[in-house]
Amino acid sequence: MTYQLHYWPSIQGRGEFIRLALEAAGAQYVDVARGSKNEGHGVPALMALLHNPKIAHPPFAPPVLVHGKHVIAQTAAILLHLGPLLKLVGKNESDRLWAHQIQLTIADVVNEAHNTHHPVGTSLYYENQKPEALRAAQQFCATRIPKYLAWFETVLERNPRNATSPHPGTGPHLLGARLSYVDLSLFQLVEGLQYAFPKTLKRALKKVPLVAALHAAVARHKRVAAYLSSERRIAFNENGIFRHYSELEG
Amino acid sequence: MTYQLHYWPSIQGRGEFIRLALEAAGAQYVDVARGSKNEGHGVPALMALLHNPKIAHPPFAPPVLVHGKHVIAQTAAILLHLGPLLKLVGKNESDRLWAHQIQLTIADVVNEAHNTHHPVGTSLYYENQKPEALRAAQQFCATRIPKYLAWFETVLERNPRNATSPHPGTGPHLLGARLSYVDLSLFQLVEGLQYAFPKTLKRALKKVPLVAALHAAVARHKRVAAYLSSERRIAFNENGIFRHYSELEG
Repeated sequence: MTYQLHYWPSIQGRGEFIRLALEAAGAQYVDVARGSKNEGHGVPALMALLHNPKIAHPPFAPPVLVHGKHVIAQTAAILLHLGPLLKLVGKNESDRLWAHQIQLTIADVVNEAHNTHHPVGTSLYYENQKPEALRAAQQFCATRIPKYLAWFETVLERNPRNATSPHPGTGPHLLGARLSYVDLSLFQLVEGLQYAFPKTLKRALKKVPLVAALHAAVARHKRVAAYLSSERRIAFNENGIFRHYSELEG
Repeated sequence: MTYQLHYWPSIQGRGEFIRLALEAAGAQYVDVARGSKNEGHGVPALMALLHNPKIAHPPFAPPVLVHGKHVIAQTAAILLHLGPLLKLVGKNESDRLWAHQIQLTIADVVNEAHNTHHPVGTSLYYENQKPEALRAAQQFCATRIPKYLAWFETVLERNPRNATSPHPGTGPHLLGARLSYVDLSLFQLVEGLQYAFPKTLKRALKKVPLVAALHAAVARHKRVAAYLSSERRIAFNENGIFRHYSELEG
């Protein structure tokens, strides 16, 4: 069954965590809002879903995955559902919960990264909150990025499969001995932080060699590499979550 | 099996969403950091858990639930695990996912509420970010609280069981015809927002009668009411997530 992803068509944003999972698994999916209006897709289809009064489980915001009778919003909830279906996490409850816990922590970093350019609120433009953004970005780079990256490094260190089965070329992994959706999400997080705060990441990644190795290994994954060099991968830009404003990084 | 909740002992914070679920279900649990050092509890026990190098799945931050061999952090992940065990959500995947999606949206509001007093960063005191906090709180009260409450109202409107089985005294419910952990969490969210921004909530709740009815009904639930009037319920204070600073509400 084809998956339908509903997300804004011109940014990576939170939808990119879903796109990466679908692409890495080689799943059939439609990126609805990027499709043709002639086929009933495009932004009008996304808006129609968001405002459909008949949906029993209304989404608060994109991304939304439509899969058969399921209409699922919230990035981490979508990946909780997709993970086992795409074979990007084990089916047992313990693995699913641990992957989900890591994903929710990635979501926390994503929220804080967004806060660096919108500390006052999402209903105002960045240009209307620049002094606040400067302070928020300085705090995020100085204290939060190092703290979060250190935690991911600890998770990688404590995964016994990284020590016993180094899997050159595909590892290390946050969970078990195979690629999981949280590896893909951590890759994307590092990509985004590198784009937004290149100087900070250059320094910070030196202290977390396993995170850096995971980032490099995911970029080499055959389907991921094909996706990243395709037109399906939207370039980072200043409408998304990870934004590069040089004035925010001293 | 007794549940162990590890959370800061002097605030409601994110731990309160877990406490409410355990209390409403009448579950046996230990609120570890509030316990006696003589019994191996208290804050040292919480710190020992957070810094235990042998934990395979290290928590990033409290709350943490220890349940048998499970060590689970992230509020929404804990409730995902606890919900079916406490009979506070159905066991089928569709119900669990929908409840979880609602919980993640509640978590988003909680993060934004925290941001109103810490828009620059969590490593600085409120007193060091008061001008930024004032702008953030104004935006939150003017645009975000109404938007989120309207979404919860829509969810309550679209639950067919609220129309056909009004359940006076226990309903309405976000999900199905019985109390679920998301009802408890929405109750707590409204409690917190009322504490932090009483004037805004007074106005806002008039526009969302089902949310107001749910809030009142949960407060009347026998075990919840007993908990709220007990010493186990910590009072709101200015170290938690929901803080009342009168200068932030115009």
